[in-house]
Amino acid sequence: MYTIEELQSRISGEINNEIFRLKEKTPANLYEPIAYSLSMGGKRLRPVMVVLSYNLFRDNIERSFPAAMAIEVFHNFTLLHDDIMDRAEMRRNRLPVYKKYTENIAILSGDAMSIMAYNYLLKDNYEVLEPMMQLFSQTALEVCEGQQYDMDFESRIDVSIPEYLNMIRLKTAVLLACSLKLGALAANAPAKTADLIYVFGLNLGIAFQLQDDLLDVFASQNKFGKKIGGDIISNKKTFLLLKALEIAENGTKKSLHEWISKKDFNGDEKIEIFTNIYKELNIKTITESYINEFYQSALNVFEEIDIAPAKKNELFRLAGMIMDRDH
Amino acid sequence: MYTIEELQSRISGEINNEIFRLKEKTPANLYEPIAYSLSMGGKRLRPVMVVLSYNLFRDNIERSFPAAMAIEVFHNFTLLHDDIMDRAEMRRNRLPVYKKYTENIAILSGDAMSIMAYNYLLKDNYEVLEPMMQLFSQTALEVCEGQQYDMDFESRIDVSIPEYLNMIRLKTAVLLACSLKLGALAANAPAKTADLIYVFGLNLGIAFQLQDDLLDVFASQNKFGKKIGGDIISNKKTFLLLKALEIAENGTKKSLHEWISKKDFNGDEKIEIFTNIYKELNIKTITESYINEFYQSALNVFEEIDIAPAKKNELFRLAGMIMDRDH
Repeated sequence: MYTIEELQSRISGEINNEIFRLKEKTPANLYEPIAYSLSMGGKRLRPVMVVLSYNLFRDNIERSFPAAMAIEVFHNFTLLHDDIMDRAEMRRNRLPVYKKYTENIAILSGDAMSIMAYNYLLKDNYEVLEPMMQLFSQTALEVCEGQQYDMDFESRIDVSIPEYLNMIRLKTAVLLACSLKLGALAANAPAKTADLIYVFGLNLGIAFQLQDDLLDVFASQNKFGKKIGGDIISNKKTFLLLKALEIAENGTKKSLHEWISKKDFNGDEKIEIFTNIYKELNIKTITESYINEFYQSALNVFEEIDIAPAKKNELFRLAGMIMDRDH
Repeated sequence: MYTIEELQSRISGEINNEIFRLKEKTPANLYEPIAYSLSMGGKRLRPVMVVLSYNLFRDNIERSFPAAMAIEVFHNFTLLHDDIMDRAEMRRNRLPVYKKYTENIAILSGDAMSIMAYNYLLKDNYEVLEPMMQLFSQTALEVCEGQQYDMDFESRIDVSIPEYLNMIRLKTAVLLACSLKLGALAANAPAKTADLIYVFGLNLGIAFQLQDDLLDVFASQNKFGKKIGGDIISNKKTFLLLKALEIAENGTKKSLHEWISKKDFNGDEKIEIFTNIYKELNIKTITESYINEFYQSALNVFEEIDIAPAKKNELFRLAGMIMDRDH
């Protein structure tokens, strides 16, 4: 069994080689933006999940690299198109593809990446290709559904917590769960184990996104790496805001609604007011209890996964790493 | 063997059922635009090609419907995203998706359609799924490459005829060839026959696109169904324009360049001038000779395809129908 750090290093090397190959391909206006998009990636969390999960069952981890590439390219495709839709200014301190190139190039390069993800899966002769393709393609469509719900929520103020949890399940959690299960399927793991690994990843993914919402407001600036309060400024329907809208009474609720509809405001003031309301309503503790609930569900499923303890330890470390959000 | 018209009727019914199902799916802002996009389709040329090709080898044509749906949904995805990129005003006398809804909805619905195309292929348990997926996914990427070359050509004046032919091969012909081969593969046709059918479709596809270029200028208005001269107005790098630029001398060449760079002009005047130059340079005859060359190549390959004459006749009729462009 390799450590997470070893796998990270191996798969990063593999991705970098692929970026180099893409830079040589024509038409350059299609493949150069794809190389650029992939070069922005951070800790390669999702492909590491694929390879680590494969490595729980088999040692020849190279076999899982095409599946890991598929996941990483698909994930970056979603970021690329999301950046167009969100009119994002920056992506990891660099210009998003649609700003560095053009919007048309970004649309088409993203389209090609989504197709390339399938081509990576088809590259290796996986023994269990069909269930892998089924899982991947079903997940990809769910991610689109999640993104549409997220967009729908922008113009709604009455989003319920169950609706929100369903949205982040689709938009974020299923891809993490799919990454783990895809590695297990590539290794021809027992069906029951692969399913448990999926549910483990799904709960972890929901906890991960809730934590992301929390960190937007309550992270220490330098650890988070993003500007604190960005979600508040943009009226993003996060768990924190939706929960606050749900439980706030009278004056507080009115104040939230007023600030949400304001067009001109001082950003720092808005962040301070929302943060104070969140503190007053105990939103941090409530959010942490939800995070903990999903994380515990993940760990309960984890207990049931039938693999050797030494191997399980790396999977457990991965869960901790994901929740630590240091990536 | 069914006739083309019977197949058209069957597959149109199938697509209409699917449109009905899509209208019921949530999130509605994702699936409703997809239903709308699919409802704009005309004669369903590509899915008919899939089913007809399958029917050359097997009678239970229902087996080929998922593959036919995959092709039709993928084709409409490319139209949907192309309309955003081209800022198209209309699509078959209706608003393009990005105008009827929003650009963000069009981007995301298109993304979902591209993924759904794979899901249709995965729906049926095709005996030969892997080569079908390989062919489809490789073709899909080639179509993106073709679209990028087409976009690259917009800002170039020095596009050579071989470059142009390569672009239309990728953008248009490979999907027609893929449609035919996919049907043959789904029917588990002999590999050599499937390959011949692909090459037949590829040559036919190039002839088809060259004819489309020709009809933009030299069609009778009511048969064509589009505005005559649209490509001339928009400076589209068609075969006609590129050939004219290649063979025109001195004054004529200068005149073409001047009109291409003009920002303000009378559209009818521009169309008349270009049409006269094309007539003067014999562009219609030259284009027809290219069309004929590719059509003849298609027919030569057709001769080699080893299937019963009665069945071949429908395939031959299909080729004629494609070239008649009455769809």
